[in-house]
Amino acid sequence: MRNEQRRTETRASILNAATSGFIADGYDRTGVAEICRRAGVSKGAFYYHFESKETVFLELLETWLSNLEYSLMKVAAEASTVPESLLRMAGMMQVVLQSNNTQISIFMELWTQASRNEQVRRATLAPYQKYQRILENLIRQGIAEGTLKPIDPVSGAQVILSLSSGLFLQAILDPLGADWGKVLQDSIRILLDGLTRRE
Amino acid sequence: MRNEQRRTETRASILNAATSGFIADGYDRTGVAEICRRAGVSKGAFYYHFESKETVFLELLETWLSNLEYSLMKVAAEASTVPESLLRMAGMMQVVLQSNNTQISIFMELWTQASRNEQVRRATLAPYQKYQRILENLIRQGIAEGTLKPIDPVSGAQVILSLSSGLFLQAILDPLGADWGKVLQDSIRILLDGLTRRE
Repeated sequence: MRNEQRRTETRASILNAATSGFIADGYDRTGVAEICRRAGVSKGAFYYHFESKETVFLELLETWLSNLEYSLMKVAAEASTVPESLLRMAGMMQVVLQSNNTQISIFMELWTQASRNEQVRRATLAPYQKYQRILENLIRQGIAEGTLKPIDPVSGAQVILSLSSGLFLQAILDPLGADWGKVLQDSIRILLDGLTRRE
Repeated sequence: MRNEQRRTETRASILNAATSGFIADGYDRTGVAEICRRAGVSKGAFYYHFESKETVFLELLETWLSNLEYSLMKVAAEASTVPESLLRMAGMMQVVLQSNNTQISIFMELWTQASRNEQVRRATLAPYQKYQRILENLIRQGIAEGTLKPIDPVSGAQVILSLSSGLFLQAILDPLGADWGKVLQDSIRILLDGLTRRE
């Protein structure tokens, strides 16, 4: 029991150390040795828990994305209409964007690795495709309940996903350039209402 | 005269070689030696033209972004209303997205470097801020001409910019996942019309 607790702690400290290292120096420049140094563990302990640096990265990714998915589904379920769901989801993302969370900057590292490494690319696209399906279903539901226009659910979902990814990207590159959480809320409102004037 | 032509050619071949290298192996892993090898020039020739690898990168960046700005302004000027300008700008970006252009993947490299290197970050943000101003003015013009709702021009511009960046990001990560050019056109249409149903 004591051993198992220690194993859990070691595992967690490796994951935390890797996160800090990737953010500070980038994925390429953070080796297993550096992760071990930051975590205060031996290389033996590292390789007991993980096959490689890439395995650590993929595990971090999976945890964040499933946490995010869970939270999004939860707030969406609490709303009574689809437009309200979307605004609540934006509200939740606002909290993430404003938290100055280290997880945000790691997204940059993730996208970079994904553009170069096929395994990371597939691991990144899987949750994207899942979010896409969730949003498509939400839009279908909105059309069915009569709150959304009968747009193509696939395009609608892609718009929301692109908008969110783009906001994350801008928030990473220019954290102080705007209140990104507020921009996200405004964006969803503008998207819901449209830009074009109708008398 | 002959010498000057050769210098221009050498310079261009260094820029092309750097582009190919950055795309194939990433910025970090492409050294000056590798750029020289690809360009078929000596290190002496390289340092005659450029101070460092970073200088090459910044010059590539500046060229692409000002070309893009010029083209966007040109198509916008040809339209008679602001919604039409936006649709035409989207049409132009569609061509960029569909061209499978190598310049697209270099954006990933750029964003990565920008998140780590202050000089690159500033060089990346400057044109972003310029696009932001252009879009803000366009929205103000649309409100004045009565084709757009009286939304906050700053938020409106950020929505369009985020949407475009997010689409680029998705197009890089998953080139075959969708017809990204079409998604952009659909997105701008959805953004103009809004999602919410009004009887």
